[in-house]
Amino acid sequence: MTEPCRDFSSDNITPAAPEIMAAIQAANRGTAHSYGADEWTARLTRAAREAFACELAIYPVATGTAANALALAALSPPHGGIYCHRTAHIEKDECGAPEMFTGGAKLITLPGDGGKIRAETIAPAYEEAQERGIHQVRPAAISVSQATEWGTVYTPTEIAALAAFARPRNLRLHMDGARFGNAVAHLGCTPAEASWKAGIDALSFGATKNGALAAEAVIFFNLDLADEFEYRRKRAGHLLSKMRFCAAQLVAYLEDGLWLRNAAQANRMAARLAAGLETLPGVRLTQKVEANELFPVLPEPVIAALLRDGYEFYRWPAPEGTEGSVIRLVTAWNTAEADVDGLLAATRRHLR
Amino acid sequence: MTEPCRDFSSDNITPAAPEIMAAIQAANRGTAHSYGADEWTARLTRAAREAFACELAIYPVATGTAANALALAALSPPHGGIYCHRTAHIEKDECGAPEMFTGGAKLITLPGDGGKIRAETIAPAYEEAQERGIHQVRPAAISVSQATEWGTVYTPTEIAALAAFARPRNLRLHMDGARFGNAVAHLGCTPAEASWKAGIDALSFGATKNGALAAEAVIFFNLDLADEFEYRRKRAGHLLSKMRFCAAQLVAYLEDGLWLRNAAQANRMAARLAAGLETLPGVRLTQKVEANELFPVLPEPVIAALLRDGYEFYRWPAPEGTEGSVIRLVTAWNTAEADVDGLLAATRRHLR
Amino acid sequence: MTEPCRDFSSDNITPAAPEIMAAIQAANRGTAHSYGADEWTARLTRAAREAFACELAIYPVATGTAANALALAALSPPHGGIYCHRTAHIEKDECGAPEMFTGGAKLITLPGDGGKIRAETIAPAYEEAQERGIHQVRPAAISVSQATEWGTVYTPTEIAALAAFARPRNLRLHMDGARFGNAVAHLGCTPAEASWKAGIDALSFGATKNGALAAEAVIFFNLDLADEFEYRRKRAGHLLSKMRFCAAQLVAYLEDGLWLRNAAQANRMAARLAAGLETLPGVRLTQKVEANELFPVLPEPVIAALLRDGYEFYRWPAPEGTEGSVIRLVTAWNTAEADVDGLLAATRRHLR
Amino acid sequence: MTEPCRDFSSDNITPAAPEIMAAIQAANRGTAHSYGADEWTARLTRAAREAFACELAIYPVATGTAANALALAALSPPHGGIYCHRTAHIEKDECGAPEMFTGGAKLITLPGDGGKIRAETIAPAYEEAQERGIHQVRPAAISVSQATEWGTVYTPTEIAALAAFARPRNLRLHMDGARFGNAVAHLGCTPAEASWKAGIDALSFGATKNGALAAEAVIFFNLDLADEFEYRRKRAGHLLSKMRFCAAQLVAYLEDGLWLRNAAQANRMAARLAAGLETLPGVRLTQKVEANELFPVLPEPVIAALLRDGYEFYRWPAPEGTEGSVIRLVTAWNTAEADVDGLLAATRRHLR
Repeated sequence: MTEPCRDFSSDNITPAAPEIMAAIQAANRGTAHSYGADEWTARLTRAAREAFACELAIYPVATGTAANALALAALSPPHGGIYCHRTAHIEKDECGAPEMFTGGAKLITLPGDGGKIRAETIAPAYEEAQERGIHQVRPAAISVSQATEWGTVYTPTEIAALAAFARPRNLRLHMDGARFGNAVAHLGCTPAEASWKAGIDALSFGATKNGALAAEAVIFFNLDLADEFEYRRKRAGHLLSKMRFCAAQLVAYLEDGLWLRNAAQANRMAARLAAGLETLPGVRLTQKVEANELFPVLPEPVIAALLRDGYEFYRWPAPEGTEGSVIRLVTAWNTAEADVDGLLAATRRHLR
Repeated sequence: MTEPCRDFSSDNITPAAPEIMAAIQAANRGTAHSYGADEWTARLTRAAREAFACELAIYPVATGTAANALALAALSPPHGGIYCHRTAHIEKDECGAPEMFTGGAKLITLPGDGGKIRAETIAPAYEEAQERGIHQVRPAAISVSQATEWGTVYTPTEIAALAAFARPRNLRLHMDGARFGNAVAHLGCTPAEASWKAGIDALSFGATKNGALAAEAVIFFNLDLADEFEYRRKRAGHLLSKMRFCAAQLVAYLEDGLWLRNAAQANRMAARLAAGLETLPGVRLTQKVEANELFPVLPEPVIAALLRDGYEFYRWPAPEGTEGSVIRLVTAWNTAEADVDGLLAATRRHLR
Repeated sequence: MTEPCRDFSSDNITPAAPEIMAAIQAANRGTAHSYGADEWTARLTRAAREAFACELAIYPVATGTAANALALAALSPPHGGIYCHRTAHIEKDECGAPEMFTGGAKLITLPGDGGKIRAETIAPAYEEAQERGIHQVRPAAISVSQATEWGTVYTPTEIAALAAFARPRNLRLHMDGARFGNAVAHLGCTPAEASWKAGIDALSFGATKNGALAAEAVIFFNLDLADEFEYRRKRAGHLLSKMRFCAAQLVAYLEDGLWLRNAAQANRMAARLAAGLETLPGVRLTQKVEANELFPVLPEPVIAALLRDGYEFYRWPAPEGTEGSVIRLVTAWNTAEADVDGLLAATRRHLR
Repeated sequence: MTEPCRDFSSDNITPAAPEIMAAIQAANRGTAHSYGADEWTARLTRAAREAFACELAIYPVATGTAANALALAALSPPHGGIYCHRTAHIEKDECGAPEMFTGGAKLITLPGDGGKIRAETIAPAYEEAQERGIHQVRPAAISVSQATEWGTVYTPTEIAALAAFARPRNLRLHMDGARFGNAVAHLGCTPAEASWKAGIDALSFGATKNGALAAEAVIFFNLDLADEFEYRRKRAGHLLSKMRFCAAQLVAYLEDGLWLRNAAQANRMAARLAAGLETLPGVRLTQKVEANELFPVLPEPVIAALLRDGYEFYRWPAPEGTEGSVIRLVTAWNTAEADVDGLLAATRRHLR
């Protein structure tokens, strides 16, 4: 019997799921045309169209940062402005990749509870840009994280409200879906309802955190925007020569619903952890737990004791108006009940 | 018994070698810290230092284009000039990636037999830049392909002559080693002699064409130049979150000499094919066959017949001064004698 | 007798000062070597060294935006972060020029009273970057506006405190001196005390708003940072071929103190306007008036009436915590007492 | 009486023409709205539309390098390829400005007699790009210099042939018109015939070399391409705040034909010089003299003697197939017959 896992630092510490490994093995036979002219890549397009129930263009890339930055480069000119939340991954965690890939576009960051932006907070910034004309970057796009950096999930209605603001103003709507599976599993809606039906133009579709070995993709629902995207991907060094191995992962991820099963498991474990933490005196969740991330406030001595036990997690900046020490706990597709229960027991013990 | 392989179009159509797949499988156990803070990445550094017998910094990335463009961005300012051969991959096959990653540096292309550049051809361009001062980009680097785009191999002496030109002029020396293994296998020298001992500052170390699933790396022998490279890699979207899977491939590739065994097999098959072709009347090799690529002139009807047979290869622009239809044939780590002999037999048959 | 001027919208609506026009005329004789190899450019370097009492390198450019963006590109790598005030011109008014010239560096904006940033507000952002490592841009520089966008002036002590924070952390210190003359005239210190003696590495030295026709310059006090700057200027299209005409303006501006006389006049007129406004009931200045900009709160009907009178000025976003309608009034080197008194009289009349 | 001028190094060593200086003086009255919202800028648009007899958009900038690089950025995506002559100013003399402004597009250089490119030389490069697909940059534009770097002039028929190649392939046609006035003066056609009627989409319209103090402009005949150009100009630091002074120069240049009178004088002096040189034994012109540049071969001792006399000019790389020492001689709007005759006399003397 293995020890319960004590690493709750991220969902990118996980191995690849067995189904993904099997798909890679199966793809490793004989020759295959390079650069995506292979059967797995063709099959991926079919699988994605079926999963999203629409025409679309899908482009595998190696990382989520690449997916986001390339998508934004397709949506914004170098002199464009991109609205996003202050805590957005593209702003805080990608070392300026969006600025590099767009050729210098600006991220215009906005506040918002639970990591969400809303038309009401974008509007004043948009108005300022209109008044200032060419002295500021031209508003070009809105980017949302789904699930958000605070583990919450935009409803299709919330996305549609952003789209209703964006469309008449010629703003494109991008979704950083590094945890899109977790969001859809939470919402219980169709992938289509969570994306293009709500008005998303381009989606960074993440798989690595949720079971893949290394596979992300940019999906364009607005095919006009995909124009010349392949040039952009190539010159960014993200056109994999042995593409079949990346495509095969995404096919396995999509074709029989692995992505939603994996995400549902991660979400269930987060909910179990949340339910357990809420019963503990002195512990407080700062955000609704909707996907696979939790942001509890814990007493400092408890945090210290958990770290001594070998638990791993990040400290997190407290949301405005919150006191106390916030940590981030992340569950994943391979988190087991025993892992969650072990953490709860340890926390309970140290709280005494 | 399988059919002989008829695809000689490239070495990137190959599957992953069994040793590489086994290494990926072995790495797929439990959690591992992300972004390179894992044991495989640490082991890779040790393996690379042992293979090259020196201190060095090694940074895995997803593609050869990324390796080249990131390396050049570390060697040249945005206002720099980079000397390379007219046929260099960075010039002809990377869709402007070097220009993107460097922020607009210029590739200054030069002629040269066998895909090689020499100090004598760089010198006039360098002198022109000195005379024109700030009206031209500042000479910053020299980039060579090893093996070259014409399948030839620079000797350590040839590299050292370029370095002797570069050093006093403060030019950095980059090697695009997408087929570095093939070059070293041909030279029979040590990896050190083929790289840093000859004066190379930074090497794009390729593995994908030679047996890996998807693994390339930038190696800096000049550690000063590696300064802040990790920022560059991250913002280019080439810092893999589950780095262990890329590192594990490179470890397997390096640790017990798999890379040189695989390359030697590819080279042997190229030599066998060359020897066979040379015996055929009406066939002429336009280049010395030193690594795993051949550039024969074939009669048009033979080319057409081979294509009808299902053979795959690219037509290639004839080198200056050559008449006739040139094609490129590439062997790989998994090319079998039967594959070569099948192609030779078919060619012989069509020549009658 | 001319009408009093009613345009208080900016100091860039002004004509060129007579001394500047005379200098241009005087430079317009015979041939002169192009691109700065002329006697005026040489004389400019001498004049600047005398004015700042130090070794320095000075590079004329066409606009203040170019001066700022080029200076920042010399101070920050493309993966760098630049700390500045939320209202900084480089953030709000240059359409992403810093991002373009640096190759994608990020401006990290900070709050601060009176348009000033302080070490205390930079420190938490700097600490976050240290913790996040390569996932965020590397802190590279601090940029301050002098005078600030709110018309206030950093004291040498305040600048020195920023420098004391910057130096041990290897951050470069840039000053956007579009209104540097106004700041020095206010401080009554030497140009040296307001710049390099306080720790400034690079200064955007503005002249256009303060009497020139079109002349700005980047001054490096830290000569190491000027390395290769001429390449950057050239490739940005800011190396003027007939440089003498730009240099001649700056020589006339510097050589006999024209810049400080002009700035003092603008400041005096601002002080006169401030003194007058403060006596008016219902008018409130939101900022200390230290240079040549005022930010009063006026009743809406008064604003409307002044606009009807033909007065010109911008409405301005109210500083945090302030109620009421804020406008910006700017005086300039050619503002006359009659202009100020006319505006005061009109305001007084409309307040009744 | 003044000495004859001995500086034939360039036309950018000239002073500003008296008409230009007068226009600047006249514009220097009272306040004017900044950033182009002034009457001179409006008048410039009218003057340009009249001169070119069409709708157009004209954008003044500070330098010719900026005009070229900004125009190309409007015509090519960052992953685009731009065809130009090997000797083009954008390739040889702008320190990578096109690469910087486009975000990394590639200049694809072509040979051609007299500095001219033709559809026949572009076609193979274009075909190669079609075959290579996303592995090479996408063909985006053609750029010609008019007059060329070898002092020759494209006829409208030659331009139209390029346009006929470009249009069906969706390539844009740019003209670097640093010496457009000299070309039109030579052709004796209308400005319209030399530009949009022949198929030019965007023109870098030069004035500085031909009498202005510092004034260039980008003219779009294809108004769709001008979309968002003002953002590009602003973020490049080329939106002059006191725009009236640049616009006033261009108005004076255009409105009563000053540009063509000045150019005609420069051309006449070049023709006089050519006629004189052709009579000298041992002197040979390597190019047809059509505008204001000459490229004679002179005996080395004569070159040395002229330099000793104080004459100034550049040595120039000999065109392919030419032997001997080539120099470049440039006449300008202010070159006098005495200047030309002085140079001829000195050459004749030294030839003996």
